[in-house]
Amino acid sequence: MRDMLIERVRLAHEAPLVDLLIQDGRIAQIEPAGLTDDAAAVREDGAGALVLPGMVDAHCHVDKTLWGRGWVPHSAGPVLEDRIANGERGRAQLGLPSRDGIRALLEQMTAAGTTLARTHTDVDPDIGLRGLELVATVAEELAEVIDVEQVAFPQGGLLTRPGTAELLESALRQGLVGCLGGIDPAALERDSVRHLDLIFGLAESYGARLDIHLHERGTLGAHTMELIIERVLRHGLEGRVAISHGVALVEVDRAHSERISQGLAEARISLLTATVYNTPVLPVAELRGRGVNIGAGNDGVRDLWGPYGNGDMLDRTFHLAYRNGFRTDEQIAAAFDVAVSGGAVALGREPARIEPGAPADLFLIDAASIGEAVAARPPRRLVLKRGRAVARHGSPVRAS
Amino acid sequence: MRDMLIERVRLAHEAPLVDLLIQDGRIAQIEPAGLTDDAAAVREDGAGALVLPGMVDAHCHVDKTLWGRGWVPHSAGPVLEDRIANGERGRAQLGLPSRDGIRALLEQMTAAGTTLARTHTDVDPDIGLRGLELVATVAEELAEVIDVEQVAFPQGGLLTRPGTAELLESALRQGLVGCLGGIDPAALERDSVRHLDLIFGLAESYGARLDIHLHERGTLGAHTMELIIERVLRHGLEGRVAISHGVALVEVDRAHSERISQGLAEARISLLTATVYNTPVLPVAELRGRGVNIGAGNDGVRDLWGPYGNGDMLDRTFHLAYRNGFRTDEQIAAAFDVAVSGGAVALGREPARIEPGAPADLFLIDAASIGEAVAARPPRRLVLKRGRAVARHGSPVRAS
Repeated sequence: MRDMLIERVRLAHEAPLVDLLIQDGRIAQIEPAGLTDDAAAVREDGAGALVLPGMVDAHCHVDKTLWGRGWVPHSAGPVLEDRIANGERGRAQLGLPSRDGIRALLEQMTAAGTTLARTHTDVDPDIGLRGLELVATVAEELAEVIDVEQVAFPQGGLLTRPGTAELLESALRQGLVGCLGGIDPAALERDSVRHLDLIFGLAESYGARLDIHLHERGTLGAHTMELIIERVLRHGLEGRVAISHGVALVEVDRAHSERISQGLAEARISLLTATVYNTPVLPVAELRGRGVNIGAGNDGVRDLWGPYGNGDMLDRTFHLAYRNGFRTDEQIAAAFDVAVSGGAVALGREPARIEPGAPADLFLIDAASIGEAVAARPPRRLVLKRGRAVARHGSPVRAS
Repeated sequence: MRDMLIERVRLAHEAPLVDLLIQDGRIAQIEPAGLTDDAAAVREDGAGALVLPGMVDAHCHVDKTLWGRGWVPHSAGPVLEDRIANGERGRAQLGLPSRDGIRALLEQMTAAGTTLARTHTDVDPDIGLRGLELVATVAEELAEVIDVEQVAFPQGGLLTRPGTAELLESALRQGLVGCLGGIDPAALERDSVRHLDLIFGLAESYGARLDIHLHERGTLGAHTMELIIERVLRHGLEGRVAISHGVALVEVDRAHSERISQGLAEARISLLTATVYNTPVLPVAELRGRGVNIGAGNDGVRDLWGPYGNGDMLDRTFHLAYRNGFRTDEQIAAAFDVAVSGGAVALGREPARIEPGAPADLFLIDAASIGEAVAARPPRRLVLKRGRAVARHGSPVRAS
C-alpha cells in the first residue's frame, strides 16, 4: 500500500490546518499544512474537514438485519417475547441470516466511520452455529475494512431452550468466538443464579469475555446487576464483562444506583447502551464521573425487531447526547468519546486516537467540531481502516 | 403556471403506479399511470416514488435560528432561565434575528416537505416588534413557497417584563399576527391567573388564536392546563387554542391525566409537541383515542437554545414515532398524520390531502411506505407548494 498524505484537515474546532502522513497503516506524522514532503504518497485533499478517530459499534446484531433489501413492514407484537418469537418465525421465511444483508450492513457501518464492531449472533438449537459461521465468513472477507468481534448469543434463552448451552460451549471450544452472551437471567430465563453460573463457568473455562443483555427493569434488573458484579469479582473477570442496556440502573433510587455504579466500577464492568426508542437513558456524565466505562452500539438495524436504524454510530451518538440533554461542544464530545474509547475499552482494545504512531482508523467529516458532527451528521468524506480508504462520501469503496 | 403531470408515483405501499395531474395549484386528476393525456403539461418522472401530503411545522422559532452560518458552540447554562437570558444576550452579539437565517431556515424546511409553519417570534421591550416585522417580510418573499403564520411570543414573560403586554396588543391591533403566545404562567410569570386572563382577554378582544408554551412539570403544569381549559370554555374559544409542549400531562397519575385529556378534547385544545431531548413524550395513540388533537413542530433549530435540528418534519416525526415505540407501518403513519392533519387542525387550516380537488401541497420521496419514509428519511425528490416545484432532491428551487 502506498503512503497517503491527507492534506489540510483540522484536529479540533478552529485549530490550524494540518497534514496527516499515513504509512504502513499508521499515522506517521501530523504537521502544519504544506510542510510534509512525501512525493511518493497518494494525496487526499481534506478541504478543511475535521479528522476524528474511527468509532466502535459495541453492540449490534448484523445477523438479524434486513439491510439492503426492499421494505419489510414490521410485524411483531409489543413485548420482548413477541419479538423473540417473531424473529425466529420470520428468520426462515426471509432467509435470515443473509450473507448479502450482513455484508451490506457492515459496509454501511464502515461508510459511516465505524472501524470496530461487536455483534451478537443468535445461537439456538434451530440455527445451531450457522449464524456464527456465516458472520465469520463475511467478517473474514471484510477483514481489511472493519474489525468484527462476535458474541455467541442465546437470544431465546439457554435454560429455556435445551441444547443451547452445548452449542455455546461448542462455539467457544472451536474458537468461533471469544465472547459469550447472556440474556435476562431472571425475567426470561426464570433462574438468574443458574443462568449466570453457567455462563460465568464457561467464560472461566474458555478464557472468554462476557456480554450480557439485561432488559430487566427496576429493582429486578438492579438485583441481577448485583449478582453479575459478585460473580465478576469471584471469578476474577474484572475488565472482561459488559452489561448491554442495563437501564434498571436509572430506575432504582439514587442510593441504590450509586451503590451499583461503585460495584460496576470496581469490577470494571462496562455498560453498553443503544439508547433506543423511549428506554431510559444512561446518565453519561454521572456514570463516567463514578468511574463506570460506557460504550455504545446501534443494536438492531432494520430487522424483525424494529424498522429503524442505519448503522451510523454518529446517529447513535446523537441519540445518546440528545437524550442526555448535552448541548455544549464539551458535553457532546464526551458522548462521542463513549462511541470511541468507551467501546474500545469495553472490548479490551486500544482506543483509536489521532496521534503519531496510532493505527490509521479514522474519518474525515465536513464539520467544525465534534458538536457539529454529531448535530448535523453529514456523510463522511473519507474513512480509513488501518490506512486504507474504505469509504468515500458515505459510500463503501470496493476493493480494487 | 403550466400544468404539471407527475408520472409513475405511488399513493401507498405496493399500490399501483399512478399519474397526478396538477392544474391551477390543485390536484386535478389521479389516474393509473400512462392514462392521463395533457400534452401541454410539464412532465415529471416520479420513478415509483411515494407521494405524501405537505407537512406542517406547527411549532418553530425561525427568528432565533443560526441556520446557514458557521458553527456557534452552545453557551447557555442548564436551566430555562439561563437559556432565556443567554438568548437575549447573544441576540445582539450575533445579529439576531437575521433575515438571511430566517430565509435559509424556511427554505430548508420547505426542501424537507413542510408547506405550512407556525413560528413563535420573540416580542419584548428590547426587540419590540422588529422580529415580527422581519419574519413577516421574509414570509412575504416566500409566500409562494411556504405558508407562514406568526405567533407574537412573550419569551421573557409579559408580567415579569413590563411593556411586553402593550407590544403584544399593538401587534394584534396592527394585524401583524392572528395568534398570541403565552409562557409558563406559574413557573416563569409567578401569577398564572393574571397571565392567562390577560392573554385570553386579548384573544377575545382581537379575535386571535392562542398558543401557550407550557414547560411546567407534573402537578403544577397539570393545574395550569386546567386553568387554560376553564378559560377556553368561558371565553368560547374552543378549537382556537393550543398548548405547546404540555409534558405535565404525562407526569401526573393516570386518572388525573385522563380527566385533563377529556377537558382538552371538550375545549378542542390542541397539543403541539416537539419531542426534544429527553422530555417526556406525549402518548400519541392514547391521546388521539381520547379525542385530543396533536400536532408537531421542530421547535428551535440550531439556535442559542440548543445546537440540534435541521427543520425536517420527517425527522421530527421520527422522534415522535420512535419515542412512542411505534414500529408497525400503521403506527408510524399515525405519527406522520400528527405532522400533517394534526398540525393543520391546530392552526385551523384544511389538512393537506392527496386527492382530486385538494391544493397540490405535497412531496415525493423514494420510500415504499410512510414507515420507510420516517425510518430512513432520504432527501425529498420533489416538493410542491400549490402546484409549484419549490424543492428538488433536498434543495430549494430558486424562483426563476
